[in-house]
Amino acid sequence: MKSYEKKYHKYKSLIDQKIHSCIHKKEPVSLYEPMKYVLSASGKRIRPLLIVLSCEAVGGSMNEALNAAVAIEVLHNFTLVHDDIMDNAESRRGRATVHVRWDSNIAILVGDELVALAYRELLRTKSKAIAQVADVFTEGVVEVCEGQAYDKEYEMLHDVSIDDYLLMIAKKTGKLFSVSSEIGALIGGGTEREIRALRSFGTYIGRAFQIQDDLLDIIADEKEFGKKIGGDIIEGKKTFLLIRAAERAQGKDKKLIQSIIKNKGTSMKNIPVVKDIYERCGIIELAKQSIDKDIRQANLQLEKLRDTPAREMLFWFSNMVLNRQF
Amino acid sequence: MKSYEKKYHKYKSLIDQKIHSCIHKKEPVSLYEPMKYVLSASGKRIRPLLIVLSCEAVGGSMNEALNAAVAIEVLHNFTLVHDDIMDNAESRRGRATVHVRWDSNIAILVGDELVALAYRELLRTKSKAIAQVADVFTEGVVEVCEGQAYDKEYEMLHDVSIDDYLLMIAKKTGKLFSVSSEIGALIGGGTEREIRALRSFGTYIGRAFQIQDDLLDIIADEKEFGKKIGGDIIEGKKTFLLIRAAERAQGKDKKLIQSIIKNKGTSMKNIPVVKDIYERCGIIELAKQSIDKDIRQANLQLEKLRDTPAREMLFWFSNMVLNRQF
Repeated sequence: MKSYEKKYHKYKSLIDQKIHSCIHKKEPVSLYEPMKYVLSASGKRIRPLLIVLSCEAVGGSMNEALNAAVAIEVLHNFTLVHDDIMDNAESRRGRATVHVRWDSNIAILVGDELVALAYRELLRTKSKAIAQVADVFTEGVVEVCEGQAYDKEYEMLHDVSIDDYLLMIAKKTGKLFSVSSEIGALIGGGTEREIRALRSFGTYIGRAFQIQDDLLDIIADEKEFGKKIGGDIIEGKKTFLLIRAAERAQGKDKKLIQSIIKNKGTSMKNIPVVKDIYERCGIIELAKQSIDKDIRQANLQLEKLRDTPAREMLFWFSNMVLNRQF
Repeated sequence: MKSYEKKYHKYKSLIDQKIHSCIHKKEPVSLYEPMKYVLSASGKRIRPLLIVLSCEAVGGSMNEALNAAVAIEVLHNFTLVHDDIMDNAESRRGRATVHVRWDSNIAILVGDELVALAYRELLRTKSKAIAQVADVFTEGVVEVCEGQAYDKEYEMLHDVSIDDYLLMIAKKTGKLFSVSSEIGALIGGGTEREIRALRSFGTYIGRAFQIQDDLLDIIADEKEFGKKIGGDIIEGKKTFLLIRAAERAQGKDKKLIQSIIKNKGTSMKNIPVVKDIYERCGIIELAKQSIDKDIRQANLQLEKLRDTPAREMLFWFSNMVLNRQF
């Protein structure tokens, strides 16, 4: 286990370094200062690591995948900056969001240029499969936009089903995970079967990751999480938990859940009340089971690959995503 | 002359057709309805035409350049949608802007996905120079963002010089023109000298186009222009005209111009007053001279190319940009 952590940190620091070197311009200051601010935030770099490990798992090397790894993280940061505007999010990774620290116009521009920088990095990839890699990447951008559009649509609806929710998170969150593992496999020169397996691996991990994210809103340690606990409840966000609770809760509980949906949120004092409903109705357990199931499915995909150290590390990696211990 | 117009309309309709077929998805409706709305607006398709004609002028064919032509127009539309949010613009091409007809969040997402669709089209280009084409395109996105950032910075400043202004429009407007002519030349397999000449051609035409745009704000026919006359004056926009007037006007005139800059705008009733200052101080004439000079410089670049029908049409084209007669 220790050696995986070591390798993870080694790769992460290489990726971080390359991400920071993406921006060498200084002017206009109003643009490049916030851009540096965004890319200097210390994310977990999950998606880049997924690219690198997937590439290695099919016989490629870390170096071949490095540009794409940086590209996916820069792209991910673009989605964060723009989503934060749309979601009126005030903090991210424990710091003020761009549109709060500067303004919305700056945040729009920062996101826009990040997309360009992401493509620049991606297209520096030396690979026979570069055309396919670019296609998969672009489809990723498209679906992430679609996912965010669904998310915003759902804010206006009272009857979002769990299937609606799963479609939305598959696009908004899951897609960049499957794009990452697929791109890694493509760059590494994987077979059709390997590419398919790794793409599915990403899809499952991505779904588990998002449901875990929903869960952390209520069970996490505030400092570690970097966000306020119960924020989703206050905003009436249609998470896995809220949608399942709307299905399962009865009587007074059901009324409260429905009022949160109808009023698009509730007051802080209701956070422990809702948490209690989630616990009593088995929603927390349900979320955990769903995550477990996805991780098992993800691991089944890995079984289709040759037994290599990179594959072993992907097993470790999926477990880490589940436990968020990094 | 007639035959150029005919060819222009033929190419424009081919490009329009291909632009409309960019979007085949329908859901989420909240995203694809406004996207179709944006791409259905009948623009002049100047940039795509610049790509196609530049490609032909160095010996390439229309078909080779068609994907890139669509890409540049889709990219241009992305910049319009996002700029309109930042500039609080209410109408565009005679119709409500996306953030007004829908909302800002939708407009952000629409712009974001347009960037992805632009890259998708661009990367479908079959050309030996595709890597260079993509680099030039990405540098275009970067500089357009920089240009818009400068534009926003200048709104806060009282002492924007004509050099500041020229830097800003070179990025915000000129860059996509030079990107277009350069990409056309690259796809057409032009020599280094041809590529350089066409890139410069685009730069000059782009600058002339923007100064012409500034000029049209005060001398255009409202219906044809699709925007309110004098809008730049009301908003105190630092155009070629306002900056030059701040340099040249004296006494009472100077005071008014300075107050418009200081107060970031003025009332409608001052539009004819400012127009009168522009006329008396020779600012309108100065703008016209500047445009003429750029067009002459642009045409000198074309002299470096072989004498072909496409080159002849580019001469016609630069003249059209000057007169906006299409």
